[in-house]
Amino acid sequence: MSRAIPGALAAARAIVDGSLTAEALTRACLERIAAREPEIHAWTYLGGEAALAEARALDRQSGGGPLKGLPIAVKDLIDTGDMPTAYGSALYARHRPARDASCVALARSAGAIVLGKTVTTEFAYFEPGPTGNPHNPRHTPGGSSSGSAAAVADGMVPLAFGTQTAGSIIRPAAFCGCVGYKPTFGLLDVTGIRPFAVSLDTLGVLAADVADAAFFVSVLAGRPTLRVDDRDWDVPRIGCCRTPEWPAADAAMQGCLLDAADRLGRAGASVSEVVLPAPFDALGRAQWTVMAYEAARSVHPEMRSDPSGVSPKMRALAEAGAVMPAEDYMQAKELAVQAAQGLTAAMAGLDLLMVPAACGEAPEGLASTGDPLFNRGWTLLGNPAVAVPCGTGPKGLPLSVQLIGRRGGDCRLLAAAAWVERALRSTDA
Amino acid sequence: MSRAIPGALAAARAIVDGSLTAEALTRACLERIAAREPEIHAWTYLGGEAALAEARALDRQSGGGPLKGLPIAVKDLIDTGDMPTAYGSALYARHRPARDASCVALARSAGAIVLGKTVTTEFAYFEPGPTGNPHNPRHTPGGSSSGSAAAVADGMVPLAFGTQTAGSIIRPAAFCGCVGYKPTFGLLDVTGIRPFAVSLDTLGVLAADVADAAFFVSVLAGRPTLRVDDRDWDVPRIGCCRTPEWPAADAAMQGCLLDAADRLGRAGASVSEVVLPAPFDALGRAQWTVMAYEAARSVHPEMRSDPSGVSPKMRALAEAGAVMPAEDYMQAKELAVQAAQGLTAAMAGLDLLMVPAACGEAPEGLASTGDPLFNRGWTLLGNPAVAVPCGTGPKGLPLSVQLIGRRGGDCRLLAAAAWVERALRSTDA
Repeated sequence: MSRAIPGALAAARAIVDGSLTAEALTRACLERIAAREPEIHAWTYLGGEAALAEARALDRQSGGGPLKGLPIAVKDLIDTGDMPTAYGSALYARHRPARDASCVALARSAGAIVLGKTVTTEFAYFEPGPTGNPHNPRHTPGGSSSGSAAAVADGMVPLAFGTQTAGSIIRPAAFCGCVGYKPTFGLLDVTGIRPFAVSLDTLGVLAADVADAAFFVSVLAGRPTLRVDDRDWDVPRIGCCRTPEWPAADAAMQGCLLDAADRLGRAGASVSEVVLPAPFDALGRAQWTVMAYEAARSVHPEMRSDPSGVSPKMRALAEAGAVMPAEDYMQAKELAVQAAQGLTAAMAGLDLLMVPAACGEAPEGLASTGDPLFNRGWTLLGNPAVAVPCGTGPKGLPLSVQLIGRRGGDCRLLAAAAWVERALRSTDA
Repeated sequence: MSRAIPGALAAARAIVDGSLTAEALTRACLERIAAREPEIHAWTYLGGEAALAEARALDRQSGGGPLKGLPIAVKDLIDTGDMPTAYGSALYARHRPARDASCVALARSAGAIVLGKTVTTEFAYFEPGPTGNPHNPRHTPGGSSSGSAAAVADGMVPLAFGTQTAGSIIRPAAFCGCVGYKPTFGLLDVTGIRPFAVSLDTLGVLAADVADAAFFVSVLAGRPTLRVDDRDWDVPRIGCCRTPEWPAADAAMQGCLLDAADRLGRAGASVSEVVLPAPFDALGRAQWTVMAYEAARSVHPEMRSDPSGVSPKMRALAEAGAVMPAEDYMQAKELAVQAAQGLTAAMAGLDLLMVPAACGEAPEGLASTGDPLFNRGWTLLGNPAVAVPCGTGPKGLPLSVQLIGRRGGDCRLLAAAAWVERALRSTDA
């Protein structure tokens, strides 16, 4: 897929040096959207004329923030004070929040232009929206950040917000073939984002490459050290890890991971095989337990007053969580503590783990957003994760590896991910 | 202060056995409020007639949830779908949320009647509301859960929601002389509560005694084992701890703690002296660092669009947090990890620590809500805390001890707190 627009860093530099205007970039995004949206359905709301007016106003200003003139997409789970916000739910079809979420306001303060809102599954769970995969619209883009991943992968917008509670950033990024970055839990503030499972919900981003994702988050978090575009990277020490879920990965995904390990080794990285400790065997299930228990609480207001407006999928999760003994929830949390301790030992001497990003290519059909099996445990542990595209599968759809860093070790993970991305591109078949 | 209404457990039992109706109880609350509110100013909104209608409807139903017919107060930091919610901010004077917060919906599903909304400081920080201390309205009730603590302590309502980010449940409970219970971080879901500092914000309750507080939270959390009214309690092993902040406690508070330790020992408890490890020396400052950093993010939408509508106190905090290097924030978080490890060792063989709940009695004047110095560190660590009244100071205002449990050890803490409460009452001078 050819990209119709420059990436975020390239565009930001071009706007600074005057070779690109915010208006021209915004117009290019809108033209791409006009051409492709009828097939992709990535957007729930598009601020076309308003965005252009904002772009022109930014072009008239000298100076400006680091995101000056960059159009961004905002997952419709995230509040915007000037655009409808429906959380993917019919119950909120006419909802207009009082304010922007903090991430939206922070992006705007840095000069970003909110181009519009992108499709989310209902309350970020499994009930899908209409979005199709940009590589083949009859296949799912993944979820719950369906529209954000599709829009970025299709070159409609350089940057987008996503959120992850099970696998909602990494999986759609992998299915659509863009970079997805889920920071360490809590690194980005979630004020104004609809809660799903409070101890899991993580704000992150979709971008064309690792450097763009790191740039966006570095600005939002006010942490310049997260950037990877302005430095040389050390050759990373990679732990290739099949994970206990390995049998659920199809042959293409298994081959993709092992081939990536091989290519990265040949490119100079130190690659060793890592086996995760025993608590990881049950970690995916523990993530489900925590998610169901917490979701039953967060969605109780809707379940109490408008249960018929909640999808059967979400209702089933909430009902399972509502009758779950608190002991199950606490045991799942305790398992996560044990897994985190074991992971510290397993990652000794390594910069990152490399694991499958998904079970394989994006499944056919839009009725399901696919399986977050390879993402659940890392979300439960709160470790940062990056999806990096790595070739295609038998159906010509993207495959990706998932890179896992230490909790709080986002700087090192991003630098290593940039190295991996470059090595995988340069050794591409 | 004589209580005009029964406590929550007594009322719940009386409603079940038919000796009390929800309507009579609600009316008793409203009568107490009518008599006292002109002096106390605890409420921002009162659902008088609607609450009575709800009470009558509940009285007509057979059966019902465990909170059936119990009027509750909701801190106005917490969303209610049928009542205004202003977060203590002029910017939200006409705000009406789309839905109840999850805790409100859960309470209603269990049969509680939301009597109204209670005064909070602006966004739960330090800019006070109009509430006066029920023991002497020229003194602060503490904050930020000012109205909830005053309303419960004054016998206007048996139960109230509060939230704590620094000391906003324990301090007002101590100043007003009721029980405040801040559960382990994350025990109660915070969906629909205005965020202040996301990794600190903790939902809890105010009640007439420990058993009522435990009862309320056990219902909300669906955890029957939190209740303390239906069992015998083991004699607790208490660590009496002056904390590094000891010099900031006045003579009355210091005397109160040491006297309580003496009385509890004479009542049969094992009481030892505990010195906290070195990281605690800087823990209060670390809590401020985390709060300022996170608050700068959560309040950025208002700071961006309506800075003049934000109080000077809140603006100063947000500005300090916005320019704070991320490294300071991460160091504060790391200090908390070290303190938590040291605390595990310091609490070995103990059921709880007993520390001052505040610097002393409620200060005079309503311009400040007092100092959360003795609460900051425990909020940062996420440990559960209970304020238990323990006599009065030289001005005739309440003093309280603060009981600290292990993170996740709410059951044991509450049982021990109930024992402490009974022992302190029975050995009262």
